[in-house]
Amino acid sequence: MSRIEVEQRVLARNEALARRNRERFRAAGSYVVNLISSPGAGKTTLLVATLQALPDGIRAGVIEGDVQTDNDARRIAATGAPVEAIETGGACHLDAPMVGRAFQALVERERGAPDLLLVENVGNLVCPASYDLGEDEKVALVSVTEGEDKPVKYPALFHHAAVLVVTKVDLLPHLEFDLDALIRNARAVNPALEVFTVSARTGEGMGAWIDYLVARCRKGT
Amino acid sequence: MSRIEVEQRVLARNEALARRNRERFRAAGSYVVNLISSPGAGKTTLLVATLQALPDGIRAGVIEGDVQTDNDARRIAATGAPVEAIETGGACHLDAPMVGRAFQALVERERGAPDLLLVENVGNLVCPASYDLGEDEKVALVSVTEGEDKPVKYPALFHHAAVLVVTKVDLLPHLEFDLDALIRNARAVNPALEVFTVSARTGEGMGAWIDYLVARCRKGT
Repeated sequence: MSRIEVEQRVLARNEALARRNRERFRAAGSYVVNLISSPGAGKTTLLVATLQALPDGIRAGVIEGDVQTDNDARRIAATGAPVEAIETGGACHLDAPMVGRAFQALVERERGAPDLLLVENVGNLVCPASYDLGEDEKVALVSVTEGEDKPVKYPALFHHAAVLVVTKVDLLPHLEFDLDALIRNARAVNPALEVFTVSARTGEGMGAWIDYLVARCRKGT
Repeated sequence: MSRIEVEQRVLARNEALARRNRERFRAAGSYVVNLISSPGAGKTTLLVATLQALPDGIRAGVIEGDVQTDNDARRIAATGAPVEAIETGGACHLDAPMVGRAFQALVERERGAPDLLLVENVGNLVCPASYDLGEDEKVALVSVTEGEDKPVKYPALFHHAAVLVVTKVDLLPHLEFDLDALIRNARAVNPALEVFTVSARTGEGMGAWIDYLVARCRKGT
């Protein structure tokens, strides 16, 4: 069997398990978001700020993916939100079976499913885009310290994502960064992208992002 | 054949071709550096500043890897340095055969081999670390806008790298970033790491980095 045949078989098996995850998430009433970005774009910082800002009526849970260490899971746990850590042990992306097992563990431990499940993927703009986890939507994060051309250089993620969150906008005054160009490049790949511009540090733009998540949860229930 | 067996076969084939590249680089008198980082850490910006600062006696050449687009190759070409673009078409890393072909094309076009070959890998902290290209050394870049814990979260790269270049240090006054912690974390993974802290924008620290590269070239000849 060739390398491409093996890859296709791996992806086909993942698709089947992603469909099963999707059915379980829907049956449990969990709206599931898969956050994907480069390492260091600020996924965990955004998650911490999001968990702190969500209204009391929304039960949130987190699945934290990392190649190694559970540092991020500990940062999330400090907010009081339930969290399951996945250490992929070298693998460059989460896959559907890993997330299915983590969801099961979370539900058993918490004796119930979250209204909103936030999945933080491994920091990687390439590989995670190919692996459906059964999520309702993929959210791509790009920080303003990266280049404006990321969407055209890594189009697969922006094609599959429903949302782009531009992070660290408090740094814009100190950078030569063209925010409009980034958004234009992202919409050239995917005209339907919802775009939020946020600073988890100052709170700028967080309200619109939180409103969006809350509306998606209620829609799903 | 299982997925792991296929991966092992792919890596074994890559190792064999990397050895062949290494022999060709040595025979040609080219010192070869493989630059690896997250997307947006500033590899291309560092390369442009490096090419502009190298002394006249060093003939430099560049191999530019990208998943899609030749944007970066065009930025490099604007400096006047010879450049070969590799579009991996979805693959998340360069491999030895891609680089062997690009080196051959560069040497034929320029009618001679560079003293210093700078290879910019695909923006990805995970997968490129596993693929030997035949280079003399791997250089890991981390920007100060990423987290201090990147070396412990992505240890494979920092284990294999000879050098860490910390980029965008001009932004330090605007960030809550502990540079010493980053370096401590990197040296915990690999005590032998050479560390440079640079800003390609202001030129801070570029002299030491250039001196290092020049010394490596002369050592190799």
